[in-house]
Amino acid sequence: MSAQTAITPTRDKDFPEWYQQVVRAADLAENSEVRGCMVIKPWGYGLWENIQRQLDVKFKATGHVNAYFPLLIPLSYLEKEAEHAEGFATECAVVTHHRLEAVKQPDGSTKMVPTGKLEEPFVIRPTSETIIGAAFARWVQSYRDLPLLINQWANVMRWEMRPRLFLRTAEFLWQEGHTAHETAEEAIAETQQMHRVYEEFLRDHLAIPVIPGAKTANERFPGALDTLTVEAMVQDRKAIQAGTSHYLGQNFAKAANIQFLGRDNTRQLAHTTSWGVSTRLIGTLIMAHGDDDGVVLPPRVAPQHIVILPVTPKEETRQEVLDACEALASTLRAQSFHGEALRVLVDKRDIAGGSKNWEWIKKGVPLRVEMGPRDIANGSVAVCRRDQGPKAKEFVPKEDFIGSVVERLQDIQDGLLARATAMRDANMKALDTLEEFQAFFAEGAPGGFALMHWAGSGDDEERLAKEMKVTIRCIPISEAFAEEGKCFLTGKPSAKRVVFARSY
Amino acid sequence: MSAQTAITPTRDKDFPEWYQQVVRAADLAENSEVRGCMVIKPWGYGLWENIQRQLDVKFKATGHVNAYFPLLIPLSYLEKEAEHAEGFATECAVVTHHRLEAVKQPDGSTKMVPTGKLEEPFVIRPTSETIIGAAFARWVQSYRDLPLLINQWANVMRWEMRPRLFLRTAEFLWQEGHTAHETAEEAIAETQQMHRVYEEFLRDHLAIPVIPGAKTANERFPGALDTLTVEAMVQDRKAIQAGTSHYLGQNFAKAANIQFLGRDNTRQLAHTTSWGVSTRLIGTLIMAHGDDDGVVLPPRVAPQHIVILPVTPKEETRQEVLDACEALASTLRAQSFHGEALRVLVDKRDIAGGSKNWEWIKKGVPLRVEMGPRDIANGSVAVCRRDQGPKAKEFVPKEDFIGSVVERLQDIQDGLLARATAMRDANMKALDTLEEFQAFFAEGAPGGFALMHWAGSGDDEERLAKEMKVTIRCIPISEAFAEEGKCFLTGKPSAKRVVFARSY
Repeated sequence: MSAQTAITPTRDKDFPEWYQQVVRAADLAENSEVRGCMVIKPWGYGLWENIQRQLDVKFKATGHVNAYFPLLIPLSYLEKEAEHAEGFATECAVVTHHRLEAVKQPDGSTKMVPTGKLEEPFVIRPTSETIIGAAFARWVQSYRDLPLLINQWANVMRWEMRPRLFLRTAEFLWQEGHTAHETAEEAIAETQQMHRVYEEFLRDHLAIPVIPGAKTANERFPGALDTLTVEAMVQDRKAIQAGTSHYLGQNFAKAANIQFLGRDNTRQLAHTTSWGVSTRLIGTLIMAHGDDDGVVLPPRVAPQHIVILPVTPKEETRQEVLDACEALASTLRAQSFHGEALRVLVDKRDIAGGSKNWEWIKKGVPLRVEMGPRDIANGSVAVCRRDQGPKAKEFVPKEDFIGSVVERLQDIQDGLLARATAMRDANMKALDTLEEFQAFFAEGAPGGFALMHWAGSGDDEERLAKEMKVTIRCIPISEAFAEEGKCFLTGKPSAKRVVFARSY
Repeated sequence: MSAQTAITPTRDKDFPEWYQQVVRAADLAENSEVRGCMVIKPWGYGLWENIQRQLDVKFKATGHVNAYFPLLIPLSYLEKEAEHAEGFATECAVVTHHRLEAVKQPDGSTKMVPTGKLEEPFVIRPTSETIIGAAFARWVQSYRDLPLLINQWANVMRWEMRPRLFLRTAEFLWQEGHTAHETAEEAIAETQQMHRVYEEFLRDHLAIPVIPGAKTANERFPGALDTLTVEAMVQDRKAIQAGTSHYLGQNFAKAANIQFLGRDNTRQLAHTTSWGVSTRLIGTLIMAHGDDDGVVLPPRVAPQHIVILPVTPKEETRQEVLDACEALASTLRAQSFHGEALRVLVDKRDIAGGSKNWEWIKKGVPLRVEMGPRDIANGSVAVCRRDQGPKAKEFVPKEDFIGSVVERLQDIQDGLLARATAMRDANMKALDTLEEFQAFFAEGAPGGFALMHWAGSGDDEERLAKEMKVTIRCIPISEAFAEEGKCFLTGKPSAKRVVFARSY
């Protein structure tokens, strides 16, 4: 790596500021004048489109169908489930009027004045359990109508005081699965199934290894009986909760009155679940793989797999080079990577080659291919892999490149996962005492995931969160974490280690 | 056709009520408890997903990329373009608070109270010219940054006093294209290009013939210099405006300050366009093709092309039949129709064959295939085409069916377009006098599209709209409407006939 980097500050100097700069340099998103609401720019939205399409395939393969429910939720709906109400009480956009009047001002300008006060205000959905529950109550009569397996792709709003692009914004895009089942067992199985879908998606598509586990009672979704989470470690060794699946028991069914006539001819309440991931995945991706030159995109979700950069030193060979680049692009597009046609862009813009090259480095496109008159004469191309630094360049016979391109992309994909896994594992430590724990999370210490025996109370958890800004990210599902031990705080017996970390 | 129909009332008895019943019978959507906001059910959303995916391909093929902009618009943005402000003033959802407090009541229940009053209220976007204009102003510096060719898939809200599922709802889903150009010519060409894209999409995908034309000044989008529209005729002979493309001139660029340094080194305002279609297309589709037994879906956008109905009279042959149906489905799915793999569902639900069959008739699936033990023995299948009435059934050798299924789907697709075109043409009349015009639109008369010479004023237009509920749907682009004549109202010379109709 060269000493000069495209992004200032570098990751080790100031990670949060590096993140903001990378989002900007890669042209992924920007703040808008609407506080906390971001504009997702085409390169960032292209990422989201790929995430969305690929997840949607997995949702449909597990029997779900998409539907769409109202953006606005009557306040009375939120009041039905008390815990949920309190959990979402503090951060909602409230609609109170349904009309604007354009009032002409003396200076000739127009002023818009809200009128038409609503009898009952609405909130813009922060999540849709309550409004979808009301629909489910209409749709379910008998056990024959179950399970209901629904997903919604939508925007949601949670007013945020400290917004951060992708990771925490007032408005964000997400999917929310909502299902209703005849039995608790089926609902639990559904929650676990979608938890696995998220784990696999993060691993195989985003190249991010996660620790799948359950949240403690303190950290559950408001109103849920159980919340499963996939927790990722990013490069400043903090955790990001990347996706959650909630087993809601009969709480929401009771609030919304989702009743059905059972096999035994008695009226019963349905057992429901909900699960979601959001544009936060993009923030996770950037923090997991980005380097001091910009974003590094896993090929499976990159808006372009390959960018071809024509090298046109002389006007008289320019057209020949452009034609050769287009021909190469066509040949490549006929191949596919994980069932999707290769996405190949020929960047013909008339700007300096150096800035053009750096632009695509910062944007994180997996493969850059340069082709000029000399390459054409030699029958070769210059191939640059984003994961190998800005100076790496390999001259490859064109036919070899065409024959090996899918393998190269898979190699990049696998390499990113291996690198992220190694980073995570190097920063995940089993500790046994309070002293070790305090040293691990001390100011200036690298931190990471501390694997601790735990048998403390909710209050203990809250105190640690307050004093040390450290929380239990999850109680891992994996038996690899099971072993007899003693809680590092209370000394009580514990059968499994949990994951403590600082988090976004 | 049998005298008994699945939908009551029939189209000729009460078309608006028939429409409501069809939407319900086909399980496409329903009203929610949020006034004017609909729930789009899975079968309806499946239609929208296909419309969305297929349109998106056309947008990308014409050089556009997707992005996402904030849901909320500051009131001050709306105030910048006065005409636009007044046009959208009356029907907006206004956000005035950003916080809810959960207040415990004496009876133990929780009440949600809006707090956190905003200094400047927001409206939920009724359309996004203003907020996207603000982003464009940030993005454009030089003529080299142009054209900007952006599309957004999003929800929008316009408070509606008389909502009707799909056709007019408070919240609806749509796409809105927004582009900025260096010259007026380029912006006009873009407006025309997207107008053609809509015309072709309606014709080739939805099997709906439209009359492409321009709106009169009275009917233009607030703030636009020109609005192009595609107007469809539905079965009660009324018009539906199915999609519009607006040439905005420099009005919005001026309001949002979208300036660039031109080739001549002077600062100039960009020339912008916007264009959109919405879930209204689904309402148009239902009204264009539905019959007295339910919806009739054009194969290209149907959520399922084919439903296979296993006929299982005896338990001992049941598994064999189900296996044969699944095998047929797999064989069919390997084929594709217009580049998309055939969508085939085997309906294995354990309910009576008659109700199952009627369910799919009402839902409008293009082909139903029945297969039972006798068919398996004969090597045949029973094929029912939705466009040929509920009793039509053809026994076809299975291999012949497999070999001809794509052709059959195309035949249905073409047949729907031919039928809709014939209906439209039979109800489109060139008239010359006010008396003919009045008789054409008299109460009890069939009505339709009246092709009239017109040279009246905006006031004349408004009077006709008020007195006769008839408006100029468009001034057709096609030269087929050009001919010298005299305005039927004013007697002034006119060079082209315009289309008058009642509309949704």
